Amino acid sequence: MSPNAPVDELVAGVRAGDARALGRAISLAELGGADAAELLRRLYPDTGRAHIVGLTGAPGAGKSTLVSALVGVLRARGLTVGVVSVDPSSPFTRGAVLGDRIRLVDHFLDEGVFIRSMGTRGHAGGLAEATLAATLVLDAAGKDVILLETVGTGQSEIGIVSVADTIVLALMAGSGDAVQALKAGVMEIPDVIAVTKGDHPSARAAVRDVRAALSVAETPAPPVLLTDALHATGVEELWEELARLHAAQASDGQLAERRGTNLVAETLALVATRARRQVEEQAGSDPELGAVLERVRAREVDPVSAVAEIVRIVFGRS
Amino acid sequence: MSPNAPVDELVAGVRAGDARALGRAISLAELGGADAAELLRRLYPDTGRAHIVGLTGAPGAGKSTLVSALVGVLRARGLTVGVVSVDPSSPFTRGAVLGDRIRLVDHFLDEGVFIRSMGTRGHAGGLAEATLAATLVLDAAGKDVILLETVGTGQSEIGIVSVADTIVLALMAGSGDAVQALKAGVMEIPDVIAVTKGDHPSARAAVRDVRAALSVAETPAPPVLLTDALHATGVEELWEELARLHAAQASDGQLAERRGTNLVAETLALVATRARRQVEEQAGSDPELGAVLERVRAREVDPVSAVAEIVRIVFGRS
Repeated sequence: MSPNAPVDELVAGVRAGDARALGRAISLAELGGADAAELLRRLYPDTGRAHIVGLTGAPGAGKSTLVSALVGVLRARGLTVGVVSVDPSSPFTRGAVLGDRIRLVDHFLDEGVFIRSMGTRGHAGGLAEATLAATLVLDAAGKDVILLETVGTGQSEIGIVSVADTIVLALMAGSGDAVQALKAGVMEIPDVIAVTKGDHPSARAAVRDVRAALSVAETPAPPVLLTDALHATGVEELWEELARLHAAQASDGQLAERRGTNLVAETLALVATRARRQVEEQAGSDPELGAVLERVRAREVDPVSAVAEIVRIVFGRS
Repeated sequence: MSPNAPVDELVAGVRAGDARALGRAISLAELGGADAAELLRRLYPDTGRAHIVGLTGAPGAGKSTLVSALVGVLRARGLTVGVVSVDPSSPFTRGAVLGDRIRLVDHFLDEGVFIRSMGTRGHAGGLAEATLAATLVLDAAGKDVILLETVGTGQSEIGIVSVADTIVLALMAGSGDAVQALKAGVMEIPDVIAVTKGDHPSARAAVRDVRAALSVAETPAPPVLLTDALHATGVEELWEELARLHAAQASDGQLAERRGTNLVAETLALVATRARRQVEEQAGSDPELGAVLERVRAREVDPVSAVAEIVRIVFGRS
């Protein structure tokens, strides 16, 4: 591989903890392509040290407030933090500065915190690849904890945080949908459940509902904590639970096993995305491929037969 | 292609509207593989006639009750119906016969209705391919309307019903999560919103909330209807709205365009799934590929570099 001056410079900057280099490196990694791949290849030996925490939950469940409060708790303990937010309704993304959200903005001035929001569109390699790349860069830059925030409670959203070591599901007190989803087995069971807005009159009842819903599940129930991020209640306890789980996993070898499994699954998902992108790109320039897709559009060939033809054309096998 | 007696027989049976042949054909189609592909190829010219309605919504939103009531409305009008349910919490799947759900069982005895539940796991070609295949077989069998029911309100769940001509989102009165998701732009906008459990005291307020949430969206707001499937209220109106939309789309050419776009998107998604499956299968028998995945698991190679290697090994290109 030929020397690559911009990548060399970014690698050195990220390793030195330079915030500007970090920002540019994440932008490059998000973009995808050959330079991004080279950057990740070079930084990869420096990764695997951060504790990656995934945070998921429905819109309005209080994820952003919780992330902000967690950042405060972590900083008070002298830990550096990276935040990757893939929530289109997140104030990180929209830049809202109203009410309690102004707290998030405070962290922008803190050199020990690096916050990156990700749009849900416009990543050549797909959102999962961009999220993974940003997380790896922050890990290589030496952040102690990386908070990966994403909206939603379905399986695809859990997919985005599947690179995390520990996963927190934020549930708002008084919200029935997510409890129903847990009960129905639609939602994957997280490592910790944080019932947010703990000052709400129904918060304690919500904790009981969640515990009852989990008691019918086949897997061991995760801890359910009551948090009130706005008043910084329960957030210390949430972090202590996450740190305790992480330490326990690290000591008995589960962490390495879980990470290995996550990385293989992530790699297979990237192959699938890459294959789809390859077909989309080639469709514009390859008349034979374009003709197959036109026949699909015109209902002249069924999708399953078309897939076989496409795989043969694009990947040279049937 | 050599003559294939079992497939010939199934094709003839499906065309003749034989319920046993239909059940076996769907099972074969769900299974995937060469016979399934041959079956779909043969039946495909007979498809495209049914009105395919997608129904999505959170667990507990009342989708199954609504499906059951819709089946009743359709049968009263002399229309034949196919139901494909991919909701793991659905009574179709679990066979629950309690309370209002007993009504669904009545339809099992009606020859004009064919109901198939799909587990969310165990399809070689993936759930999307199995769902598409089942829908195509029901379409070829001459069902007038196919109801495709799936749980969830995220983008992946909308993905499963993306083959539908018209999509209904079921929202329960008093449920805030889905309204938040609409407002946040996380959820794709359906063609019609049915606010279920219309006898609930807060149902009318829920309709207002949904309309208000939609008014901030950039796309034109879909109709919001109040339904009370248990008392058969609003279900006729829901069907009339769906039929009206479908007829309007058919007359101005939008239907063919939407179907074409859906089919191309579905085909690209199937290519991605196929690529992933190919890698998974080959990993067991190809030492070079297996070694790459082991190096991913051991963190010796980063996922992005690994993807390039895997694509080269499996598909013979870099």
